[in-house]
Amino acid sequence: MKKILMLTTGGTIASAPGAEGLSPRGSEEILSHLGSGFSGCEVTVREIFTLDSTNIQPEEWKVIASAIYEGFGAFDGIVVTHGTDTMAYTASMLCFMLENPPVPVVLTGSQVPISHPLTDAVSNLRCAFAMAESGRPGVFVAFDRKIILGCRAVKVRTTGFDAFESVNCPPAGVINATGLCLRDDVLLHPAGTPRLDTSIDTGVFLLKLTPCTNPAILDMLIDSGIRGIVIEAFGAGGVQFIRRDFVSRLQRAAREKIPVVVCSQCLYEASELSIYQVGQKALEQGAIQGYDMTSEAAVTKLMWALGRTDDVDEIRRLFARSLAGEVYVPAAKK
Amino acid sequence: MKKILMLTTGGTIASAPGAEGLSPRGSEEILSHLGSGFSGCEVTVREIFTLDSTNIQPEEWKVIASAIYEGFGAFDGIVVTHGTDTMAYTASMLCFMLENPPVPVVLTGSQVPISHPLTDAVSNLRCAFAMAESGRPGVFVAFDRKIILGCRAVKVRTTGFDAFESVNCPPAGVINATGLCLRDDVLLHPAGTPRLDTSIDTGVFLLKLTPCTNPAILDMLIDSGIRGIVIEAFGAGGVQFIRRDFVSRLQRAAREKIPVVVCSQCLYEASELSIYQVGQKALEQGAIQGYDMTSEAAVTKLMWALGRTDDVDEIRRLFARSLAGEVYVPAAKK
Repeated sequence: MKKILMLTTGGTIASAPGAEGLSPRGSEEILSHLGSGFSGCEVTVREIFTLDSTNIQPEEWKVIASAIYEGFGAFDGIVVTHGTDTMAYTASMLCFMLENPPVPVVLTGSQVPISHPLTDAVSNLRCAFAMAESGRPGVFVAFDRKIILGCRAVKVRTTGFDAFESVNCPPAGVINATGLCLRDDVLLHPAGTPRLDTSIDTGVFLLKLTPCTNPAILDMLIDSGIRGIVIEAFGAGGVQFIRRDFVSRLQRAAREKIPVVVCSQCLYEASELSIYQVGQKALEQGAIQGYDMTSEAAVTKLMWALGRTDDVDEIRRLFARSLAGEVYVPAAKK
Repeated sequence: MKKILMLTTGGTIASAPGAEGLSPRGSEEILSHLGSGFSGCEVTVREIFTLDSTNIQPEEWKVIASAIYEGFGAFDGIVVTHGTDTMAYTASMLCFMLENPPVPVVLTGSQVPISHPLTDAVSNLRCAFAMAESGRPGVFVAFDRKIILGCRAVKVRTTGFDAFESVNCPPAGVINATGLCLRDDVLLHPAGTPRLDTSIDTGVFLLKLTPCTNPAILDMLIDSGIRGIVIEAFGAGGVQFIRRDFVSRLQRAAREKIPVVVCSQCLYEASELSIYQVGQKALEQGAIQGYDMTSEAAVTKLMWALGRTDDVDEIRRLFARSLAGEVYVPAAKK
């Protein structure tokens, strides 16, 4: 019988109504809601903390990553219950903090508390356990019968049960009438020694441009001691340079050795700064391409990269290769 | 024969390759590419300016809105060619600047220049002209055979021809084998006197939260004289309050009479801050709900609202009703 570790962190799945709206409670009883049809593995439950995931921050990521790493020797798979709001950020960061995971690490949660008659938690948990028992290593999000690479998950719906999408990458698996169907071409095949590295730099800012964004924001961020910036630019990666001139501000960031990653505010498909003049000008100022990464992956990868080096060229090299399936870099750009 | 005004502003549709990548050129020849199958209306072309839409900013919105308004008396419909990168922002703002448009105003563009053999420009332009000739007033985006309310359009793909989606609202129309099929329940029915109002306040910042965002950003923005803030919060509208405490910073914004609109960073579905404690705390500090508005509509509506009043309660009232189909406010919240 497979041994599965279930780590709980709060979230809607474990929430209950109170005077201030839904807030998370202790979650010892989660398993009791799974029903008698659920069995087949030996589950050990550990409550790490009890937070709405809106309040889960880099400090919590380190605690979660360490708890997972500690479970690597003794368990065949690990399920992490987590609020949906920031699950994509946590899952992305776990992909970088946990190198060569030897077993499946599966985050899941729900849009409706597990105690509600119409909850999606039971289905999501059963799906997460199936993946955890699969023996296929990696960090995943299991939601609405989809298995998504952790660094490709994005929460795209506020209330629908199909809350997560696998962005710019097919799901690593789906549940259908034939059971759990996994895709070998999407799954990773980590083979090295498992390693935990939680040293990250949290001084990263995500700047989503609008046509009225004042470029002085970049000066303000640099003056405040920011360590890295991810820009959600327009379309294929365009940054405005007339009137509100971001390009000259990027010059200052380059001078002060602050890495700036440019990705797109379009949810789907890749950015490529070399196509248009409005992207080329940013490239000339040393912008690092985000290609088809999600913003969640770009922000967490930059924090992680800054945790190991402050050499912008070394960070650029880290962004030019995929560490956990988070990016497809065109061959010509490697 | 219907008289259509075509205003051109540059964009990929009119772009050509140069040493620095694609950049827009003059666009007199656009009509010649439509082919002999296209006819049926009398087209007057006016080139307003020639910009990559990444560089189109509030100053250009005023010029475009004025050129459209001037055409209201003499034309049956107006087509505006525009780059795709910021088309959703321009279309949203035109919905607010142009009150009671008497004729269709249809923005379109393309992902591939009109001179390219595989261009999507011909199909998009034909679709835009069909809508412009329809006699149904409003501001729309026509793209990939869909007609989208201007304030519901979002660019979601960097390269695909289905670049735009009608977010949280069905398309106002589609092109299929039966021609242009419009939906009466989505179309607006403006009946009052047309009015142009280009007085906006451009001092608006869009803040997309991440788990590592330093809340000092709100102090920096307030100190810099920002006039309004739109927050892309987590999930249903959650704002972190432990460790990185945004809620106490919202208190300061409220004290200094700076309106803060909270919407979701999830692309689809509505935010509703009253459901979770992490949203309720923001509501208690006076946050204005964005409900199911796109970020593009929230940012432009806030600029427009600040152009007519700096009374936060009056702005709150403007956000509690739909002006151009940009928001669905639950009846209990009106």
